[in-house]
Amino acid sequence: MDVTAPTGRVSTWLAKFSSALEEQDTDALKALFGHDCYWRDLVAFTWNIKTMEGREAIGQMAIATLAKTNPTNWQIAGEATEADGVTEAWLNFETDAVIGKGHVRLKDDGCWTLLTTAQQIKGHEEHKGPTRDAGVSHGAFRDRETYSERRAREAAELGYKEQPYVVIIGGGQGGIALGARLRRLDVPTIIIEKNERPGDSWRNRYKSLCLHDPVWYDHLPYLPFPDHWPVFSPKDKIGDWLECYTKIMELNYWTKSVAESASYDEAAGEWTVTVERDGEQVVLKPKHLVLATGMSGVPNVPDLPGKDVFKGEWHHSSQHPGPDEYVGKKAVVVGSNNSSHDICAALWEAGIDVTMIQRSSTHVVKSDTLMELALGSLYSEEAVAKGITTDMADLIFASIPYKVLPEMQKPQCDETRERDGDFYARLEKAGFELDFGADDTGLFMKYLRRGSGYYIDVGASELVANGDIKLKHGQAERFSETGIVVDGEEIPADVVVFATGYGSMNGWAAKLISQDVANKVGKCWGLGSDTSKDPGPWEGELRNMWKPTQQEALWFHGGNLHQSRHHSQFLSLQLKARQVGLPTPVYGLAEVHHVG
Amino acid sequence: MDVTAPTGRVSTWLAKFSSALEEQDTDALKALFGHDCYWRDLVAFTWNIKTMEGREAIGQMAIATLAKTNPTNWQIAGEATEADGVTEAWLNFETDAVIGKGHVRLKDDGCWTLLTTAQQIKGHEEHKGPTRDAGVSHGAFRDRETYSERRAREAAELGYKEQPYVVIIGGGQGGIALGARLRRLDVPTIIIEKNERPGDSWRNRYKSLCLHDPVWYDHLPYLPFPDHWPVFSPKDKIGDWLECYTKIMELNYWTKSVAESASYDEAAGEWTVTVERDGEQVVLKPKHLVLATGMSGVPNVPDLPGKDVFKGEWHHSSQHPGPDEYVGKKAVVVGSNNSSHDICAALWEAGIDVTMIQRSSTHVVKSDTLMELALGSLYSEEAVAKGITTDMADLIFASIPYKVLPEMQKPQCDETRERDGDFYARLEKAGFELDFGADDTGLFMKYLRRGSGYYIDVGASELVANGDIKLKHGQAERFSETGIVVDGEEIPADVVVFATGYGSMNGWAAKLISQDVANKVGKCWGLGSDTSKDPGPWEGELRNMWKPTQQEALWFHGGNLHQSRHHSQFLSLQLKARQVGLPTPVYGLAEVHHVG
Repeated sequence: MDVTAPTGRVSTWLAKFSSALEEQDTDALKALFGHDCYWRDLVAFTWNIKTMEGREAIGQMAIATLAKTNPTNWQIAGEATEADGVTEAWLNFETDAVIGKGHVRLKDDGCWTLLTTAQQIKGHEEHKGPTRDAGVSHGAFRDRETYSERRAREAAELGYKEQPYVVIIGGGQGGIALGARLRRLDVPTIIIEKNERPGDSWRNRYKSLCLHDPVWYDHLPYLPFPDHWPVFSPKDKIGDWLECYTKIMELNYWTKSVAESASYDEAAGEWTVTVERDGEQVVLKPKHLVLATGMSGVPNVPDLPGKDVFKGEWHHSSQHPGPDEYVGKKAVVVGSNNSSHDICAALWEAGIDVTMIQRSSTHVVKSDTLMELALGSLYSEEAVAKGITTDMADLIFASIPYKVLPEMQKPQCDETRERDGDFYARLEKAGFELDFGADDTGLFMKYLRRGSGYYIDVGASELVANGDIKLKHGQAERFSETGIVVDGEEIPADVVVFATGYGSMNGWAAKLISQDVANKVGKCWGLGSDTSKDPGPWEGELRNMWKPTQQEALWFHGGNLHQSRHHSQFLSLQLKARQVGLPTPVYGLAEVHHVG
Repeated sequence: MDVTAPTGRVSTWLAKFSSALEEQDTDALKALFGHDCYWRDLVAFTWNIKTMEGREAIGQMAIATLAKTNPTNWQIAGEATEADGVTEAWLNFETDAVIGKGHVRLKDDGCWTLLTTAQQIKGHEEHKGPTRDAGVSHGAFRDRETYSERRAREAAELGYKEQPYVVIIGGGQGGIALGARLRRLDVPTIIIEKNERPGDSWRNRYKSLCLHDPVWYDHLPYLPFPDHWPVFSPKDKIGDWLECYTKIMELNYWTKSVAESASYDEAAGEWTVTVERDGEQVVLKPKHLVLATGMSGVPNVPDLPGKDVFKGEWHHSSQHPGPDEYVGKKAVVVGSNNSSHDICAALWEAGIDVTMIQRSSTHVVKSDTLMELALGSLYSEEAVAKGITTDMADLIFASIPYKVLPEMQKPQCDETRERDGDFYARLEKAGFELDFGADDTGLFMKYLRRGSGYYIDVGASELVANGDIKLKHGQAERFSETGIVVDGEEIPADVVVFATGYGSMNGWAAKLISQDVANKVGKCWGLGSDTSKDPGPWEGELRNMWKPTQQEALWFHGGNLHQSRHHSQFLSLQLKARQVGLPTPVYGLAEVHHVG
């Protein structure tokens, strides 16, 4: 074997790595990693989502987990490749409990990044392909229960005669994707959704809304969009897709249902969830509770004085019905991120006088530029043509430790600034305050750190630049009778929209369970980057998302379609393992540094 | 190049073939084909579906079509393979009008089979992948019409303000698959369906019904089933799938609608179709009319005397509601094919006394055997694992001329008889009259020749063999007061089900248009094999299906899910070519030998 060729090099490394693991020789193991090194594990070794940063952390994790996991059968999948001094390869492996897939990057001094992921739980694999259901039982049986009758009985009895193992609160893309994964794993699950139909959380928004992420990034698990699907899904189309998907995947999806309260019985290891289902109260007793109410928490509305004197109408952006009923009126939108821009543009399109209140600087990036520079290599028609499947793209993406991400994002951000320099200059000339993130790393880091602070430009920036959308700076102080007062100046308004964002997801836990539990699990989302709205210390993974929390049997699931698809896999495996009684010792359960 | 290797051999042949075509040298062309040879063309050369059998027929077609098509750019796609003295390869080519795909098999004396197919019309390709819609128009526009508004306007105006180019009568799998193809080709189309919801033609059947064909054979275009889909779709599940598919593909699908009459104005080149749409009369003026009312025609019900004296209930199998309302009663089912067996088994499962009247011999094949021997090489988990996509499987299947099919089917049929010898012996011992087709070629030839005369055993044969389903032989003569008289013997019955099949599809043309038009287009389906219910002369393709008929602008579309998927492609291309005004000279329009 030519050990200088990429595949040979990875093979040699992998043989040593495998034997260090087998012998639980942590010194040998640490020596296989470079000075700057990361091992990110999704559920395969740690029953957690965890990045070990540096040799010491890797060694500690190994000592703690190897005896319980017994990883074996490490293989390179396909051929390794090399570029810019980094050799990379796909890996297969297994542990006592799981079939795994991995990805490794080697530098001169050893491993730079290692990703290990659980793909299936042994003996509890998804039924697909050769193990799919027959659908019909050939033969003749008195009192045969047909497939449809069995399904109807399940739908009628689950939550009444039979208790679900999991209850998911929230039936948007997050709840639906997780529900589909759990269905394929035979984990009895009920999804609780307040709206009338699956997809309504999209349908109910303003009419011109389209996804800001392109189609290649948005596939749900198992059933990809057909290849004529538009690049940016209009909101009603994605709503209909979610509705069809829910039916096709045979999810137990309770519409017109609201979870009123939930409490956990530690002794019984069981939740009591009180649900108002279409006017009827139902008490559910699941073993696990997933909050999939969106990565955004409870809407933030500034508590301004003068609401009683204001003669107009005001609401949070999440309640905004679109422009139609405001024709001929004056509108003010507080905030300058995505929602604000979208709402302002739709109001302008309807001929309405609209003013945007910019409270602080905003990162803006043109949609086309973002698609090409940020997503193009993994999620694009070009990536499809290169044979990069959605699963591969997700794993490549997951293989980059969050610590390393800013340095990889910065060149893209720099290129964006250069490419669209004229555009940014015109925006600034119009008085719009721009930023490119705390360390000039752009949109994606802002999304991960704080989930806000940016606008993906699909047209509104031009209206800001040319003054069609009026711009004011400052903080809203109070309502007047006829408008809103910003830094002492009254802006006349018939309607005020607060596009002022959301709190942390654990606000939902406070509402549904208790403030104590919300405090116990602490803030959700963010990395601990010590930048605006993402206080330190460094945590290395998104807080509380898709992994065990300080509250037993409580889980948070959310994010865009990509995250809903990708992370639902690892959350579903964690739940399945518990359902079948596998030991799931959690390594490195995150501490709580911020209550919300 | 090693011209003895398979790819070299095909390359050499293809170079000569290409130049014979280019020079329109029919002698050279004929010399490239073997003594026993076939060129099957799907729309690429003939604007027809046509198999040229023998060198003379091939030469004649070439003379007639080459100057108008100008085929060029012949390439082997991938590597050729060789087995049992036959070298085969995939081909790419183009003509003035189309991008084509082909398949060739060479024997020692030249080409044995050649398939040429149109895949896309140049300049009118489907919008997919890189040419998909944006979905959103970036920018800001006063009076913007959103994607959803545009779609809603189209749905409201088509058939009223705007006329469809095509009307499809029948919204089962055939109409839906063709509708999806036409949607991707931007051909304005309305589908007329009598039921309340897409999929009801499946839902409305008896509750234990599942597809007899396995999942790999049943995919619709563009949106394959997810890989957990059951092998044999239960009828309600396929109904729901069709409903979701119709919505996802944004078909203009008119439910609760019945076409009352249709007539063609030769001078205007336009149909007048009167539709009762949910109580309202709508007159449509399409350029083309497609009958997609199922490969079965109007139900055959024997006109027995004594209906007035019979105190029980009788109906055709297509109207059978399932067993539930007949518990405690005696049932007689006339006929011994698929529907009869399914209905008898469901009645027996409900504890009902049931007698099957066998009028003539029936071909029976066990579902598992059929799956393995007949479909396994192209449509199975094993085929998927070998990388045989559904499109490839369909084209391989299409590459076998109907003339050659019986000799390829016979060994499978022989193997079936041997493998399931005990099963057949037990059936015969119970008095069931078996056959294996006129020339012992089994199920698929019966399906193609007459669309009837067989049962795919999913359990009922065991009930026949052990006497649980009672069996009588003979012809039903008349009803009595309390039953039905078969060859002089009264069989007591509270309900009589006539599982007595269907007429030819052109019966629908008689009902909708006129008997004259039905006679003009003649019998549908069947090959002219000169076997029972498929009279000669030999025609070489299924009569009237998916290709031009003797009635201008009238088309027939039907068959199982496989045929609906595969043939909808070529029918949609024929319609698209006409819509955009391409010359579509039809070569070898089939003569009519039988009126129905």
